[in-house]
Amino acid sequence: MPEIQVVLVNPLYEGNVGSVARVMKNFGFFRLVLVDPCPLSGEAWAMASHARDVLEEARYDTLERVVEESSLVVATTGEVARSVSSPIRMPYFSPRELRSMIAGVDGTVSVLFGRENCGLSNQELARAGIICTIPTSPLYPILNLSHAVGIVCYELAGLERGTYALASPLELESLYAHIDRFLDRVDHPPHKREITLLLARRLLSRAMPTIREVSTIHGLLRRTEQRLGGAIPRNDDDTSPPRGTG
Amino acid sequence: MPEIQVVLVNPLYEGNVGSVARVMKNFGFFRLVLVDPCPLSGEAWAMASHARDVLEEARYDTLERVVEESSLVVATTGEVARSVSSPIRMPYFSPRELRSMIAGVDGTVSVLFGRENCGLSNQELARAGIICTIPTSPLYPILNLSHAVGIVCYELAGLERGTYALASPLELESLYAHIDRFLDRVDHPPHKREITLLLARRLLSRAMPTIREVSTIHGLLRRTEQRLGGAIPRNDDDTSPPRGTG
Repeated sequence: MPEIQVVLVNPLYEGNVGSVARVMKNFGFFRLVLVDPCPLSGEAWAMASHARDVLEEARYDTLERVVEESSLVVATTGEVARSVSSPIRMPYFSPRELRSMIAGVDGTVSVLFGRENCGLSNQELARAGIICTIPTSPLYPILNLSHAVGIVCYELAGLERGTYALASPLELESLYAHIDRFLDRVDHPPHKREITLLLARRLLSRAMPTIREVSTIHGLLRRTEQRLGGAIPRNDDDTSPPRGTG
Repeated sequence: MPEIQVVLVNPLYEGNVGSVARVMKNFGFFRLVLVDPCPLSGEAWAMASHARDVLEEARYDTLERVVEESSLVVATTGEVARSVSSPIRMPYFSPRELRSMIAGVDGTVSVLFGRENCGLSNQELARAGIICTIPTSPLYPILNLSHAVGIVCYELAGLERGTYALASPLELESLYAHIDRFLDRVDHPPHKREITLLLARRLLSRAMPTIREVSTIHGLLRRTEQRLGGAIPRNDDDTSPPRGTG
């Protein structure tokens, strides 16, 4: 299966962290990353039960590092947008849709889960390529953290490792930087810049481009920049050589 | 949707009962039945969080009454048989398969969950028509009780109420009693009696017969008994009139 890691961002209750370790192991997942967690003491170990190993091997890290090392970052949220005009939480996918989206992928997929009281911040959600939400009842939509992790693990269990190598996070960041520069060249209004870039990031991440596809987009942007004439791009930090639009 | 009720048989930890109430409400289920539970005090209410209503309205009852009132009884187990020759735990279905099996049903479906330490007994499993198991990792197959309930509720959420009226539990019991008498008439070996009856019960419950189908089987058995000649059946407690085999 793709390397799936569960990333808990700032979990507040250690019992939940232990329960998450247990349910991960129940479905065959072992890679747990803790970003700024509460201290773990007896209760976490008690709730982990026979999944002490998952808890012991949990990695403490930053969200930046997680994003850097992942081929795909999925953010879970209970709160989704009502409108497609809000790209922070839109469009979103169910865990079952997520399963079919990542089937066949070869790489590291990180699934982020937020705080028990307020989930992931908009800034954290913006780091993700895919937004995932578990369909719940409007009468009480807030799942316990370990239940949410359990349902996602249940859906993602048993995927075969694919052969579909995604463009690396570095290659994608270079593409987003190129798009950012391109927006300058076409005088995109500054106040729309951030939302346009987020939209591009979501759309491209979700499409899960290969390195060949990323390279083609670079080429197309470059060709367009040449035709626009005028100033030379400020910076040429994209890593792939020009190849035209083919 | 069909009336789905979650039945906890002899739960040992009140925190789990509270977590079950919460995750039921998360997926829109409100009917909780407690069979011989541990005492519920503060921890159950704390874990139920905003699902106090589900806990408050939980019914205390016996397994016998639950079976009597249900159109279909589903037993969940983590321990399934390796061989089809053991009909207590075989055949079994995943929660997703269960969803498609009960889609379209009009009636009460009770889903039983056993004790945290040893699940449901063989005797309790024998009361069920359908065995359901959540596919887990062999490295740590034992799910926390509320995680198991959560995943089943997640799968069964949002089913439409069907129009497919099942034969009532009373009608089915009458059919099983008829089959039992029939086994006498054909000199079925006594030591095989119990397992054969369990097999017939599982097979017929799983097929979810209508009253018309139950009546046809009664008729076919009766016709066969007449052709066999000899003693008149001991007891004629089936509720439907003879109709032939059509």
